[in-house]
Amino acid sequence: MSKMRANVYFGVNDFRIQEVEKPRAGVGEAVIRITLTTICGTDLHIVRGEYPVKPGLIIGHEPVGVIEELGLGVTGYEVGERVLVGAITPCGQCYACLSGQLSQCGHGDSYEAIGGWRFGNTINGAQADYLLVPNAQANLAKIPNDVTDEQVLLLADIASTGFSGAESGHVRMGDSVAVFAQGPIGLCATAGARLMGASLIIGVDGDDNRLAMSSKMGADVVLDYRTQDVVAEIKKLTNGGADVSIEALGTQQTFENALRCLRPGGILSSLGVYSGKLQVPYDAFAAGLGDIKIVTTLCPGGKERMRRLIETVKHGRVDLTHLITHSFSLDKIGEAYALFGERRDGVIKVAIRP
Amino acid sequence: MSKMRANVYFGVNDFRIQEVEKPRAGVGEAVIRITLTTICGTDLHIVRGEYPVKPGLIIGHEPVGVIEELGLGVTGYEVGERVLVGAITPCGQCYACLSGQLSQCGHGDSYEAIGGWRFGNTINGAQADYLLVPNAQANLAKIPNDVTDEQVLLLADIASTGFSGAESGHVRMGDSVAVFAQGPIGLCATAGARLMGASLIIGVDGDDNRLAMSSKMGADVVLDYRTQDVVAEIKKLTNGGADVSIEALGTQQTFENALRCLRPGGILSSLGVYSGKLQVPYDAFAAGLGDIKIVTTLCPGGKERMRRLIETVKHGRVDLTHLITHSFSLDKIGEAYALFGERRDGVIKVAIRP
Amino acid sequence: MSKMRANVYFGVNDFRIQEVEKPRAGVGEAVIRITLTTICGTDLHIVRGEYPVKPGLIIGHEPVGVIEELGLGVTGYEVGERVLVGAITPCGQCYACLSGQLSQCGHGDSYEAIGGWRFGNTINGAQADYLLVPNAQANLAKIPNDVTDEQVLLLADIASTGFSGAESGHVRMGDSVAVFAQGPIGLCATAGARLMGASLIIGVDGDDNRLAMSSKMGADVVLDYRTQDVVAEIKKLTNGGADVSIEALGTQQTFENALRCLRPGGILSSLGVYSGKLQVPYDAFAAGLGDIKIVTTLCPGGKERMRRLIETVKHGRVDLTHLITHSFSLDKIGEAYALFGERRDGVIKVAIRP
Amino acid sequence: MSKMRANVYFGVNDFRIQEVEKPRAGVGEAVIRITLTTICGTDLHIVRGEYPVKPGLIIGHEPVGVIEELGLGVTGYEVGERVLVGAITPCGQCYACLSGQLSQCGHGDSYEAIGGWRFGNTINGAQADYLLVPNAQANLAKIPNDVTDEQVLLLADIASTGFSGAESGHVRMGDSVAVFAQGPIGLCATAGARLMGASLIIGVDGDDNRLAMSSKMGADVVLDYRTQDVVAEIKKLTNGGADVSIEALGTQQTFENALRCLRPGGILSSLGVYSGKLQVPYDAFAAGLGDIKIVTTLCPGGKERMRRLIETVKHGRVDLTHLITHSFSLDKIGEAYALFGERRDGVIKVAIRP
Repeated sequence: MSKMRANVYFGVNDFRIQEVEKPRAGVGEAVIRITLTTICGTDLHIVRGEYPVKPGLIIGHEPVGVIEELGLGVTGYEVGERVLVGAITPCGQCYACLSGQLSQCGHGDSYEAIGGWRFGNTINGAQADYLLVPNAQANLAKIPNDVTDEQVLLLADIASTGFSGAESGHVRMGDSVAVFAQGPIGLCATAGARLMGASLIIGVDGDDNRLAMSSKMGADVVLDYRTQDVVAEIKKLTNGGADVSIEALGTQQTFENALRCLRPGGILSSLGVYSGKLQVPYDAFAAGLGDIKIVTTLCPGGKERMRRLIETVKHGRVDLTHLITHSFSLDKIGEAYALFGERRDGVIKVAIRP
Repeated sequence: MSKMRANVYFGVNDFRIQEVEKPRAGVGEAVIRITLTTICGTDLHIVRGEYPVKPGLIIGHEPVGVIEELGLGVTGYEVGERVLVGAITPCGQCYACLSGQLSQCGHGDSYEAIGGWRFGNTINGAQADYLLVPNAQANLAKIPNDVTDEQVLLLADIASTGFSGAESGHVRMGDSVAVFAQGPIGLCATAGARLMGASLIIGVDGDDNRLAMSSKMGADVVLDYRTQDVVAEIKKLTNGGADVSIEALGTQQTFENALRCLRPGGILSSLGVYSGKLQVPYDAFAAGLGDIKIVTTLCPGGKERMRRLIETVKHGRVDLTHLITHSFSLDKIGEAYALFGERRDGVIKVAIRP
Repeated sequence: MSKMRANVYFGVNDFRIQEVEKPRAGVGEAVIRITLTTICGTDLHIVRGEYPVKPGLIIGHEPVGVIEELGLGVTGYEVGERVLVGAITPCGQCYACLSGQLSQCGHGDSYEAIGGWRFGNTINGAQADYLLVPNAQANLAKIPNDVTDEQVLLLADIASTGFSGAESGHVRMGDSVAVFAQGPIGLCATAGARLMGASLIIGVDGDDNRLAMSSKMGADVVLDYRTQDVVAEIKKLTNGGADVSIEALGTQQTFENALRCLRPGGILSSLGVYSGKLQVPYDAFAAGLGDIKIVTTLCPGGKERMRRLIETVKHGRVDLTHLITHSFSLDKIGEAYALFGERRDGVIKVAIRP
Repeated sequence: MSKMRANVYFGVNDFRIQEVEKPRAGVGEAVIRITLTTICGTDLHIVRGEYPVKPGLIIGHEPVGVIEELGLGVTGYEVGERVLVGAITPCGQCYACLSGQLSQCGHGDSYEAIGGWRFGNTINGAQADYLLVPNAQANLAKIPNDVTDEQVLLLADIASTGFSGAESGHVRMGDSVAVFAQGPIGLCATAGARLMGASLIIGVDGDDNRLAMSSKMGADVVLDYRTQDVVAEIKKLTNGGADVSIEALGTQQTFENALRCLRPGGILSSLGVYSGKLQVPYDAFAAGLGDIKIVTTLCPGGKERMRRLIETVKHGRVDLTHLITHSFSLDKIGEAYALFGERRDGVIKVAIRP
């Protein structure tokens, strides 16, 4: 049995590159050789023990690679083709998937939430030389020749999630949109609002580097919560309240601000991962009578989603490569986690190359 | 100047039938002679001082009547025609109305929440002999000859709100729907879910009388929260979680249950009026990753909404008259408030006849 | 190799029960033993040579049965379970399916229209002892114990198609809906409009038997095109035009009437199969300025769709068994085709029992 | 009574600048002094007698101006404010308007199609010194100080219509969109598709000047129907068919091409004004089984629509000023009609200044 290197989680703050068995493709599966991957904020939660996974698991859920092996029943692909696989890998054939809820996929028709997220969560992930892809027929998205690995890397999770913030917020031509937190996902939400025709986009953060990047990704105005009353400022800029707000961090403060800055009838599109109890203040919610909507979205996946996102990149609608600020080999992934976790050196996203 | 009787709010627990001036119709306004009205749960909040209004205000927002006078610029109507006017009276001509947010109408183009609710809130209401209707062109809905006042009375608020719970929840053919609280609005939400094609409707309450009425209005199963673990029961009945839940009371408990009983990707349609801070438990919300939507709706109004609702009643799709359990003259409205406020005698709704 | 009986198409007006090989389940497939099936209007087009299929093909696309064999990779099912399979069998894993266009499934990721319809069209069908089901994981819908084969038989095609006429027409509470042609699909469209909350449903046909059935399935008014100016009548009944019209036959006349009877901004939901050129008269279309929508829908399939429809039947929302007017054994299917094709004896649908 | 100049229609090919009475504002109305207007393709149809209007009517429906007089009941405005008024002037208070069908406004609650278009059609229009605006409260959109008359001129009709082609086509992020005809409306449809996130936009025309402008407005690829098989080319570029096609001319040829170039399940968004019978070829329509949608849209109007469009211009999302290729005084409007009608001199739109 051949071997490969992989970033394995052993316990809180204990993860290491190990030699493990290279996976084999079963029925409906594929194995890809990873050519580029990255580290997600969620991976930080995992290695810090804030999001529990089983010891022994290979971490990572953002894979770009080349098809190495195709299992029985997978058709229309060839070994050697370059592919992108989304962080979320829907089966396409369960009740949830067939009703369009791909991210809440219930492999085997369970009804557990977040069922579509498997890589680096419930099955081995992408920070490795090779990756076993379940339901490959639904999840291998071919990368056109004129598009680079770097161009598509962030589509697997960051951009699919960030853009969905604008999509789930039903951003319309002429809307005003406020995006709270300008980390990787918030920056992509800003870009997504721009792509969908928002006319006034307001990026909120408290980090100069990220505020600068916010303008670059499409914000018309950036607000620094360290020095400004952001809710009051947004209400002024929007003449009464934003049409849509996007929460991209997962804290009480950002959630509450995202709620308070809305006009009556506005939509709060929430992308953050919350912990503890979230409070909905009576007044911010118009006591339940303000026709406010709160919509949460897990990263959309599957090969059709990836294909659409690749098209936006291919035709120059958005350029995500400048969010990749650093690059490391797989062997140095420990250094990459340290830099990314400590937000040193203006890091936004790191590339990992096996 | 002629006089009329009206139920005037003077202060906490102090409201009385008074002689006041009969209103006159200004530009774009109409005066109607009230033939039938009712008392809303919100009126109880007002007289108890829980929802503040200005002393001197005439209470009530559910008017059925006959056109008495038409102001300048109101066309297509004649004095003497029977009309229903919704509790919410959109102007139809402000930014909010023109964008379809009629309930958040910003008369004069302000952007205050709940701007569409004026009767018995910011202007004089319907518990009186006569009522001044603002923006009459947009708000007078003619009642067909073959439809009685009693048949349409509850459409002004209760049914429009309750049905909207199903509509905002996007109830689809074959959905499972759980409705929390079976008071007048919850009962209409139950009827609304039935009207829209839900295949399994679960009514939840803790009052035998209301549970019995719930079955009558369309619930397939009723659950008594006094004796049952309603969330567990709903998850069992729906094989994992309801597609849609409707909250029709406005408490932390009903809100939280409505959230917990949903399947991943489900919709919580909230109709209740909340007070204090509302909490969204981390787990019930799948940490923000469950593709859950929380949608709040204020009673839809305007003559087109009323026309549609009258059609459903006229063609026998729903019968709301058995929710009117008691009847009082305007002079005895104090007794009606007492009975309704104490939920005595199996009361669901009372009719008030000037 | 074991044998089975099947209704095989040999050429125009030439189809016979033959002994053929019983199918075996490959990867991702299943074989079911047919317990009940029926004949569709489309099957008549096939045997008459109006819709071309390859000689040697087994006809039929409405299968109810019992699982006989499960192929590799199909999980969560057991041999012996009762199942319903939709006429349309999406793979769930191609670009079309993953974007929610299940009926336009592009098995192998082609983009040919109508790709989701395979049974009795491009692969062997259901008028046989056994049926090979492709993409079984996405297409086997379990039938609850308390629901009979007869109750679900028409869900595979007729009801799924008919109901979709109302769904694609976005029928809303209080809408007026006119349904043109009251054959099996039109009758189900009538029932679907009722299920979704239409307040005024008008059924149009020229056959007394079908007009009577139309009332039974939910029409408030029935119009006989032999004796009435149906467009004028609908405009009168709806005070200017229907909100939604449903075309359920596929002729120039019904299409044009369905267009002419609409109010400005109305929706024509088209279910019929057209031949030749269809004309859109300038005036009926308001020259393209009437905000009219024309929406066509192919029968929705897949196990989630079937599950939803089974729920509506199970909970008594609709009863389709009285549309099954006759019953034949598989061996007598020739007689069944003759009766059904000639519309003799008040036939609406026939049951075929292998 | 004071006088003003106006472009009056007398009969086929007979229209002249005349002295007529200056209008006065009645209840709910306003008079604006026109500062900038233009000529629409529809005006050409009118003066050529192809679209019948009453002799004596003042033509034109694209007004930018300054408030001159406010009628009784119009609030929140002041004489002297700069305003844009849409070509379509919904009342906001009839059944159609209150159901969101503003363009099909039924002033006085009739249900005639196209009821929202009144200027230069059923009431006097904008090619004059002054214009009477009906339902002024719903139709006067204030122009911010930092936005010029030229920047907003085309929003009244051309851009509102063109953008709506993309909106009604439900253009989504990553979509491929083909726009047929690159006249003023088609060019705005191209810009609208770009604004909404289409990733591949294909502009089709047969005029070099317009094809060049198409690229400038956002087309990735332009196709010349004089030398190319545009349907085949689009199918190749989109790998099987466009997600959305927009028809912006109103001929059988462009309609049919727009239908043929779609993928199964695609949407044809039609903006053109058709004359004569329109044919829907059997094959292009997949016999009614391709899940194709055909959506027609009349220019959206009202002050909220205008406000949204002004926002897109104000924030630099789109620049329409380079579509205004020529400028004339009101007195020379005859010359402007000649140039525009003969498409001389690379004209796209002309500005008319009273």
